[in-house]
Amino acid sequence: MDADALAKAFVEHYYTTFDNNRAGLVNLYQDSSLLTFEGQKIQGAQNIVAKLTSLPFNQCLHSITTVDCQPSSAPNGMLVFVSGNLQLAGEQHALKFSQMFHLLPTPQGSYYVSNDIFRLNYA
Amino acid sequence: MDADALAKAFVEHYYTTFDNNRAGLVNLYQDSSLLTFEGQKIQGAQNIVAKLTSLPFNQCLHSITTVDCQPSSAPNGMLVFVSGNLQLAGEQHALKFSQMFHLLPTPQGSYYVSNDIFRLNYA
Repeated sequence: MDADALAKAFVEHYYTTFDNNRAGLVNLYQDSSLLTFEGQKIQGAQNIVAKLTSLPFNQCLHSITTVDCQPSSAPNGMLVFVSGNLQLAGEQHALKFSQMFHLLPTPQGSYYVSNDIFRLNYA
Repeated sequence: MDADALAKAFVEHYYTTFDNNRAGLVNLYQDSSLLTFEGQKIQGAQNIVAKLTSLPFNQCLHSITTVDCQPSSAPNGMLVFVSGNLQLAGEQHALKFSQMFHLLPTPQGSYYVSNDIFRLNYA
């Protein structure tokens, strides 16, 4: 699988998990992982998923507009940059967002999220 | 200077240079640098600046809304995530954009842009 296909597969997996089983995202982070969510900095898989599961909405649906990826300087690391829309249940309009991930390989041959920065793009 | 202040100083320098002397951005990239601009992948300082200086507008003004940064796994590397508005001369409405930079240290104690991904956020 080339890097672009791998990035798209990661992105699809990430947002499908977010929308259907947010607590399951814990497997994608490690203790060293960093999330900056709307300017708030959080470190560690447990803390990150505690933040994501405590967001003030229950149902949401991400739809992805663009996925760009580049190799990072880390061995087999990958930078993934996403833009898309976030539809919350009961809200008329979708919210636009941008998010970046720095993925690093695990010894098991998979990837984890080393860095994650999320921002809503207010109109 | 802490990481947040350093990221903000870089961002201010980058967009001031972009808006006033776009060709001067060449000093911020190296031959290994990658730019993905609206999905188009470009490598190397000269090619990147050739792309940026050939964009179909002469005057523009970036205004920055948010700057987030995190240490990357690279030694002294830094991920910088920017959102903002881009006003082109003669256009009534500003364009919203998001951009991420992966900065790596130079032997001279400064930073260069190793990775750069830019996307307009269409309304």
